[in-house]
Amino acid sequence: MKTSKKAARVADPQWERRVRESFGRQGLMRYLGAELAGLRAGECEIRVIYREELTQQHGYFHGGVTAAIADSASGYAAYTLMPTGYSVLAVEYKINFVAPAQGEMLAARARVVRSGKTLTICAADVFAVKDGAETVCATALSTIMAMAGKPDSRDGRNG
Amino acid sequence: MKTSKKAARVADPQWERRVRESFGRQGLMRYLGAELAGLRAGECEIRVIYREELTQQHGYFHGGVTAAIADSASGYAAYTLMPTGYSVLAVEYKINFVAPAQGEMLAARARVVRSGKTLTICAADVFAVKDGAETVCATALSTIMAMAGKPDSRDGRNG
Amino acid sequence: MKTSKKAARVADPQWERRVRESFGRQGLMRYLGAELAGLRAGECEIRVIYREELTQQHGYFHGGVTAAIADSASGYAAYTLMPTGYSVLAVEYKINFVAPAQGEMLAARARVVRSGKTLTICAADVFAVKDGAETVCATALSTIMAMAGKPDSRDGRNG
Amino acid sequence: MKTSKKAARVADPQWERRVRESFGRQGLMRYLGAELAGLRAGECEIRVIYREELTQQHGYFHGGVTAAIADSASGYAAYTLMPTGYSVLAVEYKINFVAPAQGEMLAARARVVRSGKTLTICAADVFAVKDGAETVCATALSTIMAMAGKPDSRDGRNG
Repeated sequence: MKTSKKAARVADPQWERRVRESFGRQGLMRYLGAELAGLRAGECEIRVIYREELTQQHGYFHGGVTAAIADSASGYAAYTLMPTGYSVLAVEYKINFVAPAQGEMLAARARVVRSGKTLTICAADVFAVKDGAETVCATALSTIMAMAGKPDSRDGRNG
Repeated sequence: MKTSKKAARVADPQWERRVRESFGRQGLMRYLGAELAGLRAGECEIRVIYREELTQQHGYFHGGVTAAIADSASGYAAYTLMPTGYSVLAVEYKINFVAPAQGEMLAARARVVRSGKTLTICAADVFAVKDGAETVCATALSTIMAMAGKPDSRDGRNG
Repeated sequence: MKTSKKAARVADPQWERRVRESFGRQGLMRYLGAELAGLRAGECEIRVIYREELTQQHGYFHGGVTAAIADSASGYAAYTLMPTGYSVLAVEYKINFVAPAQGEMLAARARVVRSGKTLTICAADVFAVKDGAETVCATALSTIMAMAGKPDSRDGRNG
Repeated sequence: MKTSKKAARVADPQWERRVRESFGRQGLMRYLGAELAGLRAGECEIRVIYREELTQQHGYFHGGVTAAIADSASGYAAYTLMPTGYSVLAVEYKINFVAPAQGEMLAARARVVRSGKTLTICAADVFAVKDGAETVCATALSTIMAMAGKPDSRDGRNG
């Protein structure tokens, strides 16, 4: 029995610059100290270093941080495959927290599961790195929409 | 046809103080500028004011902020109904982003849908407030676990 | 503070006939004995009567039945608001099972939460009816896609 | 950087018989014609052959069938690792439909992602098999609860 799979196909040769510029415009990622640590066609890794400002009540990483980097990593994994002139929009995601997000760093690794014309499905795992050893602390599944004719820029002023 | 419903029952007369103290220990909520704006048995509202540090690439609130306050509001809605000596743990959630999180403020309102001995199910809506008018920008459904014999404190050092 | 809400707007005066015909083409609904019990613009109710063929290992309704009627009710709630010539596609959903699906009947009630041009978000509750009394046994949140230029018909042969 | 992982550990030497007997009690699986096609510690595969009774409006497999076998496969993947005297309960799941469920057979393959004392997290992929070639048509993430002191039997009469 053979398995057919759609390979990740890049539609814009400038995808890497486009993704990095968009990431640079996310005020929250900068504020959390998150870093774009890995980028390949259909894949993205975002890391964040532990500090008190990112904690929940027990002193571990807050689920909001875990989810935020999984969300951004998924969006950018999808964005690597989109043509120019498109913008990326998170439609929804689901995340399971499977172990305490405890350690000196979190790393979210997202990959495109299915890339359609309008919708892209991504899976992401978040790893807690403690004393150099990784443990999966969350796993997520998300739906991302390609918005045609809406370039990713800062014209959209809030407020 | 009558509808049977389980009313929200408080198990700890000190629930409000307990919830507020736990919220106060969440470094991330403080860092985001989030405020515990409403608290009733089985219900919780958390608000956050717009600023550049909380944005995604278009200048709106980042989905990570939307999700973080929905997540905390859901956890604390569940926590209002738990007995003393218990801690609250987010098992998983799913969130749909239904409109741009655009405006001067976000408000997450969570309520307990079903309160079991071990698991509590919460629903939350997040509203974007723009020029004083509210629009639902996200809706979430989450599963929360009651952890017996694990008081909500800061003994659990990270790292 | 006022709340702005998008009302459910019908785009096709023949929506009811269109929805009923599509429901009639779902072999699975017929096989499960499911019935289209209520239909309004943006809302749909599907019911199914208990029998041994629909059970899980303890003799209650199988989660697959609960989910199937929640899924179809959500799709058809969305479909009531779509223009002619469109087809409806379930992108994803999440369902929480909050009580045993125990009783003589299940009723899934879905409603449109947000209706966009491409995507519609629906919420659904499933009620178990036992001795005439209803209890919520599941709650779901789903994303539905409108497929332009793909009429809802049986030309799409399987296999 | 090393990765720590919890291996799937069997707690009951009779797990296979226990799982097969439980599957045999699911009236819905029999009614759908579903078959337990593969079983390993922490893994389960369920298959179902196409027929008109399992269709949605376009003649493909209904999402309810896709979800039902993903749900049962996930529950039984989790059940393989549970001790005797326990019962398995689906808390919730999320499923993304990533391609039409079109073909002569569906196969749901589930695996335990994280096995805890109370909760188990499973991932499942559903493949549509058409002319002998497999395509992923759905992917799911679910939370399953171990119910102590509630053996998996048919004493629980419905109605």
